[in-house]
Amino acid sequence: MARSNKSTGPQARLPKGFLDTPAQDIRATHRMLDTIRQVYERYGFEPLETPAIEYTDALGKFLPDQDRPNDGVFSFQDEDEQWLSLRYDLTAPLARYVAENFERLPKPFRRYAVGPVWRNEKPGPGRFRQFTQFDADTVGTDNIAADAEICMLAADTLEALGVKRGDYVVKVSNRKLLDGVMEAAGLGGDHNAARRLMVLRAIDKFDRLGLEGVKLLLAAGRKDESGDFTKGAELSAEQAEQVLGLLGVEEGVSADLDLPVLGYADQLKVLSLLYCKSALALEGIGELRRISELASASGYDHERIRIDTSCVRGLEYYTGPVFEAELTFQVKNEDGQTVRFGSVGGGGRYDGLVERFLGTKVPATGFSIGVSRLAAALAALNRDKPAAADGPVVVLVMEKDRIADYQRMVQALRSAGIRAEMYLGTAGMKAQMKYADKRGAPCVVIQGGDERALAQVQIKDLIEGAKAAATIKDSREWREGRPAQFSVKESELVAKVREVLSRHRG
Amino acid sequence: MARSNKSTGPQARLPKGFLDTPAQDIRATHRMLDTIRQVYERYGFEPLETPAIEYTDALGKFLPDQDRPNDGVFSFQDEDEQWLSLRYDLTAPLARYVAENFERLPKPFRRYAVGPVWRNEKPGPGRFRQFTQFDADTVGTDNIAADAEICMLAADTLEALGVKRGDYVVKVSNRKLLDGVMEAAGLGGDHNAARRLMVLRAIDKFDRLGLEGVKLLLAAGRKDESGDFTKGAELSAEQAEQVLGLLGVEEGVSADLDLPVLGYADQLKVLSLLYCKSALALEGIGELRRISELASASGYDHERIRIDTSCVRGLEYYTGPVFEAELTFQVKNEDGQTVRFGSVGGGGRYDGLVERFLGTKVPATGFSIGVSRLAAALAALNRDKPAAADGPVVVLVMEKDRIADYQRMVQALRSAGIRAEMYLGTAGMKAQMKYADKRGAPCVVIQGGDERALAQVQIKDLIEGAKAAATIKDSREWREGRPAQFSVKESELVAKVREVLSRHRG
Repeated sequence: MARSNKSTGPQARLPKGFLDTPAQDIRATHRMLDTIRQVYERYGFEPLETPAIEYTDALGKFLPDQDRPNDGVFSFQDEDEQWLSLRYDLTAPLARYVAENFERLPKPFRRYAVGPVWRNEKPGPGRFRQFTQFDADTVGTDNIAADAEICMLAADTLEALGVKRGDYVVKVSNRKLLDGVMEAAGLGGDHNAARRLMVLRAIDKFDRLGLEGVKLLLAAGRKDESGDFTKGAELSAEQAEQVLGLLGVEEGVSADLDLPVLGYADQLKVLSLLYCKSALALEGIGELRRISELASASGYDHERIRIDTSCVRGLEYYTGPVFEAELTFQVKNEDGQTVRFGSVGGGGRYDGLVERFLGTKVPATGFSIGVSRLAAALAALNRDKPAAADGPVVVLVMEKDRIADYQRMVQALRSAGIRAEMYLGTAGMKAQMKYADKRGAPCVVIQGGDERALAQVQIKDLIEGAKAAATIKDSREWREGRPAQFSVKESELVAKVREVLSRHRG
Repeated sequence: MARSNKSTGPQARLPKGFLDTPAQDIRATHRMLDTIRQVYERYGFEPLETPAIEYTDALGKFLPDQDRPNDGVFSFQDEDEQWLSLRYDLTAPLARYVAENFERLPKPFRRYAVGPVWRNEKPGPGRFRQFTQFDADTVGTDNIAADAEICMLAADTLEALGVKRGDYVVKVSNRKLLDGVMEAAGLGGDHNAARRLMVLRAIDKFDRLGLEGVKLLLAAGRKDESGDFTKGAELSAEQAEQVLGLLGVEEGVSADLDLPVLGYADQLKVLSLLYCKSALALEGIGELRRISELASASGYDHERIRIDTSCVRGLEYYTGPVFEAELTFQVKNEDGQTVRFGSVGGGGRYDGLVERFLGTKVPATGFSIGVSRLAAALAALNRDKPAAADGPVVVLVMEKDRIADYQRMVQALRSAGIRAEMYLGTAGMKAQMKYADKRGAPCVVIQGGDERALAQVQIKDLIEGAKAAATIKDSREWREGRPAQFSVKESELVAKVREVLSRHRG
C-alpha cells in the first residue's frame, strides 16, 4: 500500500469539533501551564495523571445540559462488553482514584491534574469536543479553609500569569444559599429536584442570556436564535422574583451598570438580612463569612475575591461554596462589540462524589481552569507585545556535494545550544531564503565555493535585513553601521551567530 | 444523588490495561519531556498538537500484529454514522495534517509531537492500552541527510538525558536491504506480499525470541508459552538461511557473544560483498553509506550510530532507512536475570503515508520515543541518587480558632516562592506530624498559645530530625550544633524556613 499510485485514497479532514494546534499556540500554552503548575505546586498540590478512558459507570453522569443517558460522552464497549467512556472532566476520575486508593492516600489529599477531556456534543463556534482542563482539588476535608485557599489559589495563578490586580475577580457564592432560597420559595423536597436543577441552569446562564433570558427560563421557557426551545422551570411570578434576588439586579436595571462594590462586611450584612428566614441560606452565608475572614487575614480583599450570589456554576454535584474566576478587562467579541472577557475557570465543593463509591462521606472541593480560554485571554492581553524571534538559524545548501560540511556547521551550532537546521529540500537559493523567512529564521548561514576556499561563511541577518528594507532613508549609512550580511571565519561561526541572536533576543 | 446515603454505588476500578501515574513519576517524566523538547527545538522541529480522535479511514491500518479490520483501535460512530477512532500513533495524524494543510506549510515540514496514543489490544505485563509517544518527523524531502539527522537527534537526546556515551547505540538499517534480500530469495512480487510481512515481523522479534524463535516463525510457525500458535512464513531452509544472514549470526553462535564492532567502512564493505546481487539491496546499502558519511563528518562515530541489519522495525509502512535507539547498559528483568535494557525508540522513512491522501509522493522520515519505557530506563540509571526533598512545608493547626493566622503564614511562605500548606484535616498533633511525614515535608511550622504570646513560631526540621534519630552516638552534641527544632520570631519565619530548605536542597 505504501508505494501505490492510486489517487482516490481517504480524504484528509479533521473531525468536526476538533482542532489542530499550531506551534505558536502550543508554546504559549506550554509556558502558561508551567506557570500554573508552579503556583499549584507552591500551594502543596501533588500532580496526578489518570487515563483518558474510564468505566462509564465510574464516571457517572454529571454533565450540565445532558440529562439523557449515554449522551454527552464518547463511549464504546470493551471485549467483555463492559462500557468504557472518554472522561468528560478531571473530577470524576479523581473521585474514582480516591475511592480506589483511599486507605493509602494522605488525608486530606491535594492533587492537581492537567489534560484533555472530551464531550460528545454538537460542535459550534467556540464549542469543541476536545479541550484541556487544569484542576486542583482537596479531598477528604470539610474545612472551609480549603475553599478559601482555592479562591486565593485562583487569584495567585492569574497574577502569576500577568493578569493585573483589578483585571480579574474571583467570585464566590454558596449552593446552600441558592438551595435555601428555593426552599423558601416552596421548591424544596425530592419531587421538586428536577425543577431546582432547571432553576440552577437558568441562573448559570445569566452572563450569557441576561436578565430577560433567565426570566423566560424560570417561567414557561425560551426559544433561542436557532429556533430551539428550552423548557422553563414554570415558577410563579413570586417564586421567580425570590430567585432573581440572587442576581442582585432589579427589573429595568442593567447588569452592566457599575454599582459601588460593597466590602465583605457590608455584603454579608445585606445577605443575612435578605435571607434570614432560611436556615440553609444562613449556613451558606456563614461559610461565605468564613471564607472572607480567611481571605482578608491573608491580605486578599474584596476587589480580588468577591462574594457574588449570581455565581452558581452549572454542575449539578456542588454542595457548598462555588467559585468562578472572571477576567474583567475589555475585549472585542466576534461581532466587534466591546465586552468583558469573562469566565476562565470555576469550581466548588462537592461532598458526594467519592461517596458514590464508598458509601461514606468524603468531602472535597476544587477548581478547574479552561486552558484554551485562559490562553486566549493571555493572548489578548499580550497582543501588542512583539512576537518572539524563535525560528531556527538555517544553513543554506549552496553545493549539494558539500552537505556533510553544512551538516557539521549545524551540529556545531546545536551543540552550542543554538536552534539550527540545514535546509533539507531540493530548491535553489531564492526558494531557500523564502523557506528561512517562512520559518522565522533570525539569520541564515551561507557558504558557496568562494567562501569555502577562504574557510569563511556569510551570515545574513534577516531581522536587520527586514528593518533595513523598511528604512529607505539613510539605509546606506545604517547598513554600513550594522551590516545585515557579513563574512566571518568558519571557526568563528558559533560565536558570531550567537552575537546576532543576542542582538535580537537580548 | 450527591447527598444520597446508599452504599451500593459503582465499583471504583481502573479499566484493565490502563494506569494511574503517581506524582514522583509525573515529575520525573515532566523533566524528561522538557529535556527532549529542548533538543528537538534545537534541531529546528516545531511543535504540533492534533486531537486524540480522527476519522477511522484517515488513520488507516498500519499496526504491527493487527491484520484484522477494526482491531487494535478504539472506535465509535459519530452522530452522522461516520467512524471515529482514538489515534494509535502520532504518525498517521501527522500524515492527515500534512495532507490537509499541504499548500501553506513550509517544505520540508519539521514537527515534533508528544501525547498519549491508544491500542485496543489485550493488556499484559508491560503492555498497556494507553501510552505516550514523543515523535519528531521531517516531511516533504527524500534527502537522506534528514535520516542521518534523525540518528544524531536520537543520540543527542539520550546524552542530554544523562545516558552516557557507550550506554546507548542508535542502530540503523534499511528496508530496501531486507526487501532486496527477500527478492533475491524468490519472495518478490505482489503475490508474496503477505509472506514478506510475516518475514518482517519474524525478524523484528529477534531481540525477544532469539534465533530459534525467528527460525520457527520463518518456517511452519511457533507456539508461545501461553499455547497460542503463530503461523509461520513457510520459507524453505535455503530462503530462511538467506534472510537469517541479516541477523549477522550463524547457527550455534549466540547473539549475546560480543563480537568486535566493525567501523562504518568495514561494515559497508562486508554488506556490499554479501548483497552485491540485488540492485535494491545495494541501493539500501548506498543510503546507509550516505548516513554513515554524514554522521562521521559531524563527529558521530559507529559506537553511537551503528549499522545493524537485524534492525527492521515492525511497522509495515517503512520504505527506506529504519532506526532503533537501544540502551545497552544492564538491568535486572522481572525474573532477576541481568539483561540489556533494550529499545526505547525507533522510526524510519515512510514515503507513502501522505500519498494515501494526496496521490502524489510526499517522502518523510521520523522517530518515536516510547516515553514510559525511556522514563523507566532513566529511573533505573538514577536509582542510587537520593530522592529530591520536594514535599511542602506544613504549617500545623494547634488551635482551631487561629487558622486565619496559620493561613497567613502559609500565604507568606508561598508568596516567597516556598512550597507550603496548612494542615486542612481535623486530626491532632501526632496525626498531623504523620501527615507531614507522608507528604515528605522538609519541615513543619508550629505555633501554639505559648509561642503566639511571644510572637514566635517553632520550626521542626524533619530531615535533620530523621538523621538525628538515625545517629544514636553523639546525637546530643550533633543536635546542639544543628538543632532539628528551634524557635524563631514570627517576622523571621520566611527567612528561617528558607535556610532549612537550602540546607537540604542546596
